[in-house]
Amino acid sequence: MKIGFIGLGNMGAPMALNLLKAGHALNVFDLSVEAVRTLVDAGAQAAASPKAAASDVECVITMLPAAAHVRSVLVAADGILAGIAPGVPIIDSSTIDPTSVKAFAELAAAHGNSFVDAPVSGGTGGAAAGTLTFMVGGSASAYEQVKPVLLAMGKNIVHCGDTGTGQVAKICNNLVLGISMAGVAEAMSLGEALGIDTKVLGSIINTSTGRCWSSDTYNPMPGVIETAPSSRGYTGGFGTDLMLKDLGLATDAARGVRQPVYLGALAQQLYQTMSTNGAGRLDFSAVIKLYRSRDRGGDGQGGTQ
Amino acid sequence: MKIGFIGLGNMGAPMALNLLKAGHALNVFDLSVEAVRTLVDAGAQAAASPKAAASDVECVITMLPAAAHVRSVLVAADGILAGIAPGVPIIDSSTIDPTSVKAFAELAAAHGNSFVDAPVSGGTGGAAAGTLTFMVGGSASAYEQVKPVLLAMGKNIVHCGDTGTGQVAKICNNLVLGISMAGVAEAMSLGEALGIDTKVLGSIINTSTGRCWSSDTYNPMPGVIETAPSSRGYTGGFGTDLMLKDLGLATDAARGVRQPVYLGALAQQLYQTMSTNGAGRLDFSAVIKLYRSRDRGGDGQGGTQ
Amino acid sequence: MKIGFIGLGNMGAPMALNLLKAGHALNVFDLSVEAVRTLVDAGAQAAASPKAAASDVECVITMLPAAAHVRSVLVAADGILAGIAPGVPIIDSSTIDPTSVKAFAELAAAHGNSFVDAPVSGGTGGAAAGTLTFMVGGSASAYEQVKPVLLAMGKNIVHCGDTGTGQVAKICNNLVLGISMAGVAEAMSLGEALGIDTKVLGSIINTSTGRCWSSDTYNPMPGVIETAPSSRGYTGGFGTDLMLKDLGLATDAARGVRQPVYLGALAQQLYQTMSTNGAGRLDFSAVIKLYRSRDRGGDGQGGTQ
Amino acid sequence: MKIGFIGLGNMGAPMALNLLKAGHALNVFDLSVEAVRTLVDAGAQAAASPKAAASDVECVITMLPAAAHVRSVLVAADGILAGIAPGVPIIDSSTIDPTSVKAFAELAAAHGNSFVDAPVSGGTGGAAAGTLTFMVGGSASAYEQVKPVLLAMGKNIVHCGDTGTGQVAKICNNLVLGISMAGVAEAMSLGEALGIDTKVLGSIINTSTGRCWSSDTYNPMPGVIETAPSSRGYTGGFGTDLMLKDLGLATDAARGVRQPVYLGALAQQLYQTMSTNGAGRLDFSAVIKLYRSRDRGGDGQGGTQ
Repeated sequence: MKIGFIGLGNMGAPMALNLLKAGHALNVFDLSVEAVRTLVDAGAQAAASPKAAASDVECVITMLPAAAHVRSVLVAADGILAGIAPGVPIIDSSTIDPTSVKAFAELAAAHGNSFVDAPVSGGTGGAAAGTLTFMVGGSASAYEQVKPVLLAMGKNIVHCGDTGTGQVAKICNNLVLGISMAGVAEAMSLGEALGIDTKVLGSIINTSTGRCWSSDTYNPMPGVIETAPSSRGYTGGFGTDLMLKDLGLATDAARGVRQPVYLGALAQQLYQTMSTNGAGRLDFSAVIKLYRSRDRGGDGQGGTQ
Repeated sequence: MKIGFIGLGNMGAPMALNLLKAGHALNVFDLSVEAVRTLVDAGAQAAASPKAAASDVECVITMLPAAAHVRSVLVAADGILAGIAPGVPIIDSSTIDPTSVKAFAELAAAHGNSFVDAPVSGGTGGAAAGTLTFMVGGSASAYEQVKPVLLAMGKNIVHCGDTGTGQVAKICNNLVLGISMAGVAEAMSLGEALGIDTKVLGSIINTSTGRCWSSDTYNPMPGVIETAPSSRGYTGGFGTDLMLKDLGLATDAARGVRQPVYLGALAQQLYQTMSTNGAGRLDFSAVIKLYRSRDRGGDGQGGTQ
Repeated sequence: MKIGFIGLGNMGAPMALNLLKAGHALNVFDLSVEAVRTLVDAGAQAAASPKAAASDVECVITMLPAAAHVRSVLVAADGILAGIAPGVPIIDSSTIDPTSVKAFAELAAAHGNSFVDAPVSGGTGGAAAGTLTFMVGGSASAYEQVKPVLLAMGKNIVHCGDTGTGQVAKICNNLVLGISMAGVAEAMSLGEALGIDTKVLGSIINTSTGRCWSSDTYNPMPGVIETAPSSRGYTGGFGTDLMLKDLGLATDAARGVRQPVYLGALAQQLYQTMSTNGAGRLDFSAVIKLYRSRDRGGDGQGGTQ
Repeated sequence: MKIGFIGLGNMGAPMALNLLKAGHALNVFDLSVEAVRTLVDAGAQAAASPKAAASDVECVITMLPAAAHVRSVLVAADGILAGIAPGVPIIDSSTIDPTSVKAFAELAAAHGNSFVDAPVSGGTGGAAAGTLTFMVGGSASAYEQVKPVLLAMGKNIVHCGDTGTGQVAKICNNLVLGISMAGVAEAMSLGEALGIDTKVLGSIINTSTGRCWSSDTYNPMPGVIETAPSSRGYTGGFGTDLMLKDLGLATDAARGVRQPVYLGALAQQLYQTMSTNGAGRLDFSAVIKLYRSRDRGGDGQGGTQ
C-alpha cells in the first residue's frame, strides 16, 4: 500500500520504518532534513510538503507534538487537504485533545476523507519493536479500513468508539498512571522513612491490593525493579515533561466538561515542580525525588541534582 | 496447640474458627456474649478475661479495632500480661500504628514474651476462607515460632522485618490503594463524561500502564467488573470508614517522620467527605460518587442517596 | 473625547454609561440589539461593526468574555484594526491570559496602535458606581494616555508594568482570593462542627492572623457578615463559574512557566465540583456547601439544592 | 494575687514576668533550672513540683508544649490536682486538642476546680509586650474569674464559649493562616515568574480582594514588606514546625468530626516538606521556597540551603 507519513520524530521515525519493513511504500515529510534522510535511506520517498506527501497515496498518517501542528499540517496551503484524494483515510497518532480531533474530523469529512484519532502507548521501545497499542477513535468502517495499516506498527489495535474516544482513552489511562506513580512514590518513601526494606515493601505491594504497573513494573524506588528507569538513574523511559503534557490534556478536558480531577490536578503540580527544578527530561518516576530527603539517599529537591 | 484468642469481631471470629478447624484448642475472650457463644458452639472454651484467655496457653492472638484496645487488653489488671507465662508469643493482628507496636513489644519483652505485629489483608472473605495475607514484624526466630499458627488462618505469611514493619507494610499498601482507587474513580468518571464506553475504557486501562487492582479487580464504575462492589451497590467489600482509618494511620505515621504524603492526605479528605455525607459504611470504591453528577447516573453528593 | 466601546455586557454596559455621564461621546457595538439600544437611549451612537465603532475615534475600549472574542473583534475583516486610525490607543478590559495580550499588542503595534490590558476588579457594583480598580499593563506613556479615560469608570488606576502585567496582577489576586475563600470555608465549617459559635469564630479570625477579605468582608458562613452573599442565599456577588475561569487562567499561566500552584489547582477542583453540581451561578463563597453536612444546615452536595 | 505558674519556655517565661510586673506573687515550676532561676531573680518563688506550685495559690496557669505534658502535670502523684485547693481555677494556655481539654476539665471538676483553655496568639513578641490575645473556653463565670489575671499578660481577652472552644478558635484561625500563607506564596511566585514587579503585585493584592495578613503584614516574598521575616532571611517569626503542629491539630480535629479539610491537609504537606528538608525552624512564610526556582532567586529545594 502507498502511504503518506508526516512527522518523523522519536516515535514517528521507528513507526515509519516498520511500515517499510511490512512492504508498504512511503511518502515522508518532516521539517528535519536528517529525519527525512534516515527514512529515504531505508527506502522511503521524500516529499516536499505535507500536500505532496498526501498526494497519490492510499492512506495518510500524522505523528506530531501538539494539536497546533496537526491543524497547520492539515489545513495549510501546502497541507494534507490540499493534496489528498477524496476517500483516502487520515490517521493521526499524535496525543492531542478530543475537541480538536472532532474539529479536524469535520474538516476532513467536508473534503470527503475520514479522520481517525489513533494515539499510542508503548513508548519509543514499542515503536521500534512494532508492539505499540493503538487506541482508535472513529466509525466502525473507518476502523476496519485503517486496522491493517496499524497492525504493521503495533500489537494491540483497540476500537474505542467514535471520533475522539481514542484520545479520551489515552488521556484517562495516563491520568491513572500519573496519579498511581506519585502514589507509589509516596508510599515507598514513607515505608523507607519508617524503616522497612524497600524491596520487601515492593514485593508485598505487588502481591496485594496496592499492586499497579507503577509499582510492579516501573517502581520509582531504586533497586526494587532492576529493569525500571529508577534503577538506572531515571534515564530513558517516559519523560516528566511528557507526563506533564498528558496531565495537562486531562485537566483541560476535565475543565471543559466541569469534571473534578482532584488527584490529577495535584499530581500535575508535582510533576510541574520536577520540571521547574530542571528534571523535566528525567523519567516521570523521578517524582519520588520530591519525597526522599537527602539523608535517605534522595535529594528532597525536585531532582535538581 | 492451645491458643488464647482475644477479639471475635468480623475478622477475629472466622480466623478463630479456622484455628479450631486446624485442630488447635482455643481459649476465647470478647466483650460480646454472642460472639463468644458462636465460638464455644464450635468447640472453643470461653475465658472470663484476657488474663484468663492468656493463661496456660502456648500462644496468644489479638484482633482488635485500635491501639487503645490492644493496650488495655495487654496491661489491664485482668489483662494478658497478668496471665501469660514467660516465653509464650503474642501475635497482634490488629491494624495499628507502628509506634504503639514498638511500645507494646517492649512491655511484653519486659515480661519475657515476644510480641509480633501481624496485620492482615484479604478482608472478611479471606478470613473465612483462610486465605489471608499476614504481614509479620518481629525477629526471625519469633517469625518462625508463629508462622505455623498463622498458616492455619492464611495463605501468605510474609516476614517484613523487625517489630512494627508488619504495620508499616500494611499502611503503605493501603496508602497506595486509597490513592489508586480515587485515581481510577477520577479517570473513569472523566472518561464517562467525555463519552467513551466505560467498559471499553476499563479494558484499555487494565491492559495498559494504568492497570491496578483498583481498576482490574475492584473498578469503582458500575458494570465494568461484574464481581466488584460497584456492581452491587457498593455493599460488602472494604468499608470507607476502614480506609479512612488506614489513611489516618498513614498520614499520622508520615507526620511522625516528617514525610510528605500529598496525594494520601488529599485522598483522605475525599473519603472523609464520603463519611461526612453518610456513606462511611459503603465500600470505599463508592468514592466515585463524589465525581459523577446526577445526570450521569451518579449523584454528585458524596453518596448520600 | 470620542470613544469606541465594544462589548456591552453586565460589566461593559455600566462602564460605557459612566463614560457618557463624564461627557464623552461613544460609538458602541454589541451583538445584542437590546444592549445597544440601552446605550443609544442614553446618548451613544450605534455602530454597525467593530470596524465602524473604531473609526474616527480617539480611543477604543473592549470588554469581552474571552481571548477568542478579543482576537476576532480585533482582526476580523470588519474588526477594529480595519477601521482604527494610527496612534489611537486600544484599551482591553477583558480578563484574558497574558500571552494573548502580548500577541494582540504586537498586532496593534504593527498597525501603529498601542494596546493596553486593563482588567478590572470591583464587579458589577463597582462598574455601576464607577469605583472599579483598573490594573493596567503597557508602557508608561500608554498608561498616561489612557488614564484619564479610565478615571471616568474607576477609582483606582494602577500601572502594573509592561504589556500583560495588568492581567498578571488580576490573575494572581484572584488566585489568592479563590484559595483564601475555600480556606475560610474549611475553617468556618470545621469550627461549626467542633461547636464554636460561628459569629464568635468569625470575629476572632477577623482580628487575628487569619483575617482576609474572604473572612471579614465576604465570609462564606451565613450570618457572620450580614452584607455578604452568604447571608442572602449566595445570590449576586462573584459567580462560581467566573472564579473557575480565573483559576483556569492562573493554572494555565502557571503551566506555561512551569510554576507549581498546588493550592490553586486544588481550589479549582473544588469550584469545578460546585459547577458540576449545578451551582456555577451561585456566588463563589457557596463553595462552603461542599464542607457543611446536611445536619449542620448545609447540604454536603456541592450546592445542588 | 498568688498564682502558680508551670511551664517557663519561650512563651511562658515572658508571660510570668508580666504577672510579676502586675504585682502578682508567683510560685513557678519548670524542668529547666535556668528558666526557674530567671523568674526567681525577678521575684518569683521556686516550687519543687507542680503540686507545690499549685499549693496555697488563688490561680494556676500552665503553658506547655503538648497535651501529654498537660496531662502529666495535672494528674501525676506530684501534680497540680494533688496540691490545689478546691475552687481554685486552672488556666491552660498551651495549644492542644479540644478533646483533651474536655477530659482535663472533667478531671479538674471532679476535684472541685474549673479548667479553662486559654491559648494565645501574638507570639513571643506579644508575650513580652503583654499584648497577647487570649482565646478563652469555659463557663461565663469561669471566664469572669480568670479575666483579670489574663489582662496582666494580654490585650484582648475573648470568651469563645464553653470548654474547648478557645482551642477551636485558635486551631481554626491557624488553619486559615497556614492556607492563606501558602496561597500568597503561590501567587507571589507565579507573578514573579510571569514578570510583574513583586512590590507592585503585593500592593495590588493588599488593596484588593486577595488582601490578607499573610500578604499585607507577613508577605513571604522578600522585599515586599520590610518588617516581615521574609525580608530578614525568614528568621524569627512563627516557626514552620509550630505551624505544622497546629495544622496537625486541625486535621486531627477534622478527622474526629469527619469534616473534610482539603486545603488544610495539602498545606500541611507543604510545611512538612519544608520540615523534611531541614527548614523546620525557619519562619513558616519560608514555604515560598518550595515555589521559587533557583534562577529566580529562590532555591526550589524546600529551603535546604
